[in-house]
Amino acid sequence: MLKSEMKAELVAVLGDAHVRDDTESRVSYSYDATPLYQSMPDGVVFPSTTQEVQSVLRIASKYNTPVIGRGSGSNLSADTVPVNGGLVMVMTRMNRILEIDKENLTATVQPGVYTQALHQAVEKEGLFYPPDPSSMKISTLGGNIAECSGGLRGLKYGTTKDYVLGLEAVLANGEILRTGGKLYKDVAGYDLTKLLIGSEGTLAIITEATLKLIPLPQSRRALVAHFDDLDAAARTVSAIIAAGIIPCTLEFMDRKTIQVVEEYARIGLPQEMDAILLIEQDGPPVLVEQDIQCIHRIAADNGAAHIAIAETEADGSRLLAARRSALSALARLRPTLILEDTTVPRSRIADMVRAINRIAAEYNLEICTFGHAGDGNLHPTFLTDARNQAEIERVEQAFADMVETALQLGGTITGEHGVGMAKAPFLEWQVGKTGIEVMKGIKRAFDPQGILNPGKIFSDRSLPRKGGT
Amino acid sequence: MLKSEMKAELVAVLGDAHVRDDTESRVSYSYDATPLYQSMPDGVVFPSTTQEVQSVLRIASKYNTPVIGRGSGSNLSADTVPVNGGLVMVMTRMNRILEIDKENLTATVQPGVYTQALHQAVEKEGLFYPPDPSSMKISTLGGNIAECSGGLRGLKYGTTKDYVLGLEAVLANGEILRTGGKLYKDVAGYDLTKLLIGSEGTLAIITEATLKLIPLPQSRRALVAHFDDLDAAARTVSAIIAAGIIPCTLEFMDRKTIQVVEEYARIGLPQEMDAILLIEQDGPPVLVEQDIQCIHRIAADNGAAHIAIAETEADGSRLLAARRSALSALARLRPTLILEDTTVPRSRIADMVRAINRIAAEYNLEICTFGHAGDGNLHPTFLTDARNQAEIERVEQAFADMVETALQLGGTITGEHGVGMAKAPFLEWQVGKTGIEVMKGIKRAFDPQGILNPGKIFSDRSLPRKGGT
Repeated sequence: MLKSEMKAELVAVLGDAHVRDDTESRVSYSYDATPLYQSMPDGVVFPSTTQEVQSVLRIASKYNTPVIGRGSGSNLSADTVPVNGGLVMVMTRMNRILEIDKENLTATVQPGVYTQALHQAVEKEGLFYPPDPSSMKISTLGGNIAECSGGLRGLKYGTTKDYVLGLEAVLANGEILRTGGKLYKDVAGYDLTKLLIGSEGTLAIITEATLKLIPLPQSRRALVAHFDDLDAAARTVSAIIAAGIIPCTLEFMDRKTIQVVEEYARIGLPQEMDAILLIEQDGPPVLVEQDIQCIHRIAADNGAAHIAIAETEADGSRLLAARRSALSALARLRPTLILEDTTVPRSRIADMVRAINRIAAEYNLEICTFGHAGDGNLHPTFLTDARNQAEIERVEQAFADMVETALQLGGTITGEHGVGMAKAPFLEWQVGKTGIEVMKGIKRAFDPQGILNPGKIFSDRSLPRKGGT
Repeated sequence: MLKSEMKAELVAVLGDAHVRDDTESRVSYSYDATPLYQSMPDGVVFPSTTQEVQSVLRIASKYNTPVIGRGSGSNLSADTVPVNGGLVMVMTRMNRILEIDKENLTATVQPGVYTQALHQAVEKEGLFYPPDPSSMKISTLGGNIAECSGGLRGLKYGTTKDYVLGLEAVLANGEILRTGGKLYKDVAGYDLTKLLIGSEGTLAIITEATLKLIPLPQSRRALVAHFDDLDAAARTVSAIIAAGIIPCTLEFMDRKTIQVVEEYARIGLPQEMDAILLIEQDGPPVLVEQDIQCIHRIAADNGAAHIAIAETEADGSRLLAARRSALSALARLRPTLILEDTTVPRSRIADMVRAINRIAAEYNLEICTFGHAGDGNLHPTFLTDARNQAEIERVEQAFADMVETALQLGGTITGEHGVGMAKAPFLEWQVGKTGIEVMKGIKRAFDPQGILNPGKIFSDRSLPRKGGT
């Protein structure tokens, strides 16, 4: 519940309908897409303008109350769970595409626009916004920016950070910060745009973004290659890149994921293969045809058991849609899904997948692995049950082992999901005490009171490392 | 001169040969490529390892002495001028390419490697490092990273920030910070890699970088289009992009620059044209051919007076080399060249060029303009004489007018040269008091003593704005 004095001030700004502290509203915003994490906020607010965001932050500063910015809450790092209570600030009313500028190839959007809504709007104009997190149907662009969302097309096109040219954001004290613009080159001081991307709502609340667009590729074509040997799949990935081909997607699914996705989506995937690669190329038709034929040859040369080229773009889209549905498909098997996000250098993918399988056996756990093979970004997914405390403890130990292994292979604790609460205890393993200190200093520079999304990125818990340094 | 106690400590670490405080050495490192700025350092040091850099910084911290990291000093913002004295730390002994990893498409380099040396090394392996500042023959990669250098290929390929995956850097207190890695996706905490890029040596000293490479384009072809009307050139730029073509370079030269470059390079440029566009496309031959023919049509449709397609790649390279030589060519005309770096949204290029011509007339100054039309990054260049105080004062006023105009058009005070000392008084015009305060907070988080490159980015001078807010 909100203190009555603070509530009155919030209502004066936002109106009665947009300030909630009834139990239903508080429960609704006590969790996000991340399992195992829940915490009740004191209230929920729904601003509709930058000025309202400013007012909310000024009020929150005055009452020293946490503010957790949130879009759809589709993040997977417990980044929008109000662990210290406070106000959840839901940005979904600010959901307008303000401009699509065809001359400068930019879109200007409010944070509550759905990712896929922007895709559709710009593609109608022959333009393209590549970042495509699997949650893109429901994820918001503000959330994508706060998390630096990746997606399937990251290998060729990069991630959210590569497509944000400018931001309007409100600091904890209510002041407006404007960064960048419709500019491809801008080196006026520190790159605050890039710093805010992926800052997980801990530095400022994003209220507007200028995004970079590119011309829409003229065509696309997909191919699926089946392997009864993991190493053959990994070799194929390396050989494609070595041939100078950067496909727009290069997705991997392991045996268990294949079986589950096939059962869910019925697209004719084989049941008895160790791995499949789903590969899509886009661009001018003549080049796409060339690349797909070349990829076919490379997969065959590297021991693919079966290769099929999609007959049409639509067939290819169905394949990719099936891959995007992997999480939903897996969710039908066990009550709780915990999705890891380890990323390793591309050359170490086979090593990482083998380590995951070893860890699953060692801890007697069910783990399905899929992900973006082209950029080394794997999503090993624990199929478990939150009510089984003993199993959850094994999951946590296995999870720590996996993080340790990824770091030993030159990887990261999170490729695209963010740190949030879920990975916070591991951040120091990767960036060291010096990295943590520098990041805390940056946090203080933006938010000296510490009211923006507290309890995220930085952890009170220091975990001892099993191996390494 | 260095204090004898501090000098003894530096010599103990680096050896006698690599610590200099004789007048000759100090004068040699009192300036960089930026005219009008000069200031004597107390000494110059030449470390050869990260450990030596750590030791130098610990000693400098102890004696509270400024440290100015420097490569070749080819920057154009007076960023390596030791305005508060102290130690110039020259990184050119750390000049090894440590690894070219063909499987992960990365290069790992020390900061003193020349940009062009990296180009040559990776191109031999069929790989490509796109950033190509005009100074690439002599500029160092450490300097490129500190300045976030751009170049001719920025429109299609982005700038230095798009090609740095990881850094090793030493903080002011001597501690080592490691960021990123051979990873295309990494969202573990704030993006310190991107924050260090373009931080102009004010946050840390870069001692190693992991760079992203891409496959080398198979072919390239250039075209030159002459216009007797500035607007026709600008329309052509917009029409090319609107056709979904992103050329790898799209360069602009105005009448005066054309004349001077032709006199210098003798490549057959016309003397009586208002503007030329130098356009190059790269990629698979079939696509390059298609794009170049399409660009030819667009230029003709938009009123180009003459268009010539380079017969061979070598002919194209000569054209681009001539463009790269613009600064050297102009340098022969008057004793002092002052290079502006205003960048505007692509759609405002003609407006900006017209404003520059108006300003030149208003202040009775000679200004030649060339630059990267595709990304709106113009380099209006004052031809002047530092000894003529009255003229230099007019230059400064004109310069302020130009900055004001660029900002009014939605542009930036610096597209690729950095803030340094030269643009510091204008930074607040662009990022506001709030932006400055946030940036100063970041600076304090990294360097609480303020010993790293003091006097850069932030200015003591607050300039009143003529118009705007």
